[in-house]
Amino acid sequence: MDERTALRTLAAELPAAGDDAAVVDGLVVTTDMLHETTDFPTGTTRYTAGWRAVGASLSDVAAMGAPAVAAVAAYAAPEFDEDELSAFVRGARDVCDLVDAEYVGGDLDDHDEFTTATTAIGRTHDPVFRSGANPGDLLCVTGTFGRSAAALRYFERGDAERGNDLFQFEPRVAAGVELVDDATAMMDSSDGLARSVHQLAEASDCGFAVDSAAVPVDDAVDDVTDGENDYWESALHFGEDFELVFTLSESALERATSASPTPVTRIGRVTEGSAGITLDDGPLPDKGYTHSS
Amino acid sequence: MDERTALRTLAAELPAAGDDAAVVDGLVVTTDMLHETTDFPTGTTRYTAGWRAVGASLSDVAAMGAPAVAAVAAYAAPEFDEDELSAFVRGARDVCDLVDAEYVGGDLDDHDEFTTATTAIGRTHDPVFRSGANPGDLLCVTGTFGRSAAALRYFERGDAERGNDLFQFEPRVAAGVELVDDATAMMDSSDGLARSVHQLAEASDCGFAVDSAAVPVDDAVDDVTDGENDYWESALHFGEDFELVFTLSESALERATSASPTPVTRIGRVTEGSAGITLDDGPLPDKGYTHSS
Repeated sequence: MDERTALRTLAAELPAAGDDAAVVDGLVVTTDMLHETTDFPTGTTRYTAGWRAVGASLSDVAAMGAPAVAAVAAYAAPEFDEDELSAFVRGARDVCDLVDAEYVGGDLDDHDEFTTATTAIGRTHDPVFRSGANPGDLLCVTGTFGRSAAALRYFERGDAERGNDLFQFEPRVAAGVELVDDATAMMDSSDGLARSVHQLAEASDCGFAVDSAAVPVDDAVDDVTDGENDYWESALHFGEDFELVFTLSESALERATSASPTPVTRIGRVTEGSAGITLDDGPLPDKGYTHSS
Repeated sequence: MDERTALRTLAAELPAAGDDAAVVDGLVVTTDMLHETTDFPTGTTRYTAGWRAVGASLSDVAAMGAPAVAAVAAYAAPEFDEDELSAFVRGARDVCDLVDAEYVGGDLDDHDEFTTATTAIGRTHDPVFRSGANPGDLLCVTGTFGRSAAALRYFERGDAERGNDLFQFEPRVAAGVELVDDATAMMDSSDGLARSVHQLAEASDCGFAVDSAAVPVDDAVDDVTDGENDYWESALHFGEDFELVFTLSESALERATSASPTPVTRIGRVTEGSAGITLDDGPLPDKGYTHSS
């Protein structure tokens, strides 16, 4: 059973799960496990790892349109190096500070590989799900795409400073809170923009027409990619950029754009499901980042 | 740096941590990571693992005297076997049902060893901490001690059925909620009764006099241990029984005992810090379960 099948098994057993975060009794809750070989390229500092791991969970809270309350992390490593642990905690705390959440510690475990499991909690009685997109709505995103793909190239080149810098993203909690009233569907782009659009389509039972020229690609992608294929692979499919991908009615666009503290870009529109999911004149492949070891 | 030193480092950096669960904005939050080689003896079913992992976090919520709201788990394994994953989820859900919490799913990850990280959330504006014990108070516990030590023996003997049965404990959430108004200090006994008493003493700056004859030792311990040393080692030091260890004034004992749905036993009293921590006529060693691989 691969991970996507396994996730479907879990979702079938757990009606509260299946969105970016579970909603229970006015709370949104989400958890993620990351580990060294798959999630933290050589050169990633523990400060960045703490930031990024906790940030990934906070991004799921943001995707529900909920203010973040708190985050915790379990930290496992072959040995406890005080400097590494302190750096991890500082990174975790700094990303929480950025979104007005409290980092409240966690658990320690021995493990043969550096592994961390993070949980973030938000509070809302009116979350936005993946399932509300309507044909005619606009498809929008926050921020830019391809930062994490570019970061990986910098790590590969030995420029860890630039890699770490690009890896420290701002979870879009403040934007999510501003967008919650207008967004008809929303999620974060952790698995890549293309896959996110497919997931919104599946949850909302609709199609999408995406305009590649409108996709805001990070400048860093230009600096590190080689040719058009590489460029679009990084921008659309690599993922882990943790931007918000959402839909809203055309009449709400101006209000949403001016309310969001992060730039909002319209990149396409919602179509009938029968029209499929297109990028310009062709199909947009459902290809994205798949967690694997 | 060993785990206790590492935990102190974390606690120093994070004033909200350091008790059984962190308290933030009316919520209590706690996370734990467990893995196969150290926490799940051969013979432990995935159903029991799900129960126990989520139960351990719910027990921390109970120790704060808070009703439990929800729990999540991240599940990592070398491969995703559908039956194993379903069993884990059933165990997690059943232990949540037992304490009126909602199990809301989690994350999946590849890992070379079965690993799970669980988070439980409770809600209270009036938690009880480890730090409020006063000389003259009584020392009490819920339930019985030595179940997990006995379970390990059954697993070693190949009696997995009995081992799994003893490993499925009831988190004392309902008892914690009934005791919260009377308890002056409370924690759970995950690191063993002896270490718990030492931790209460450190947090409350007091001493304890424990009466061994009063300690409620589970019948299973009698069945599997060999001699008095083995018996007391299992009951006092092995840990992982997830009972509540708490203090209250003598005048509150009768009310607490009748209110708690789990039997409450008085096992000693709080003394001045200068009197140390004693078991009958001698010192009670600060020796307990230390997580190690």
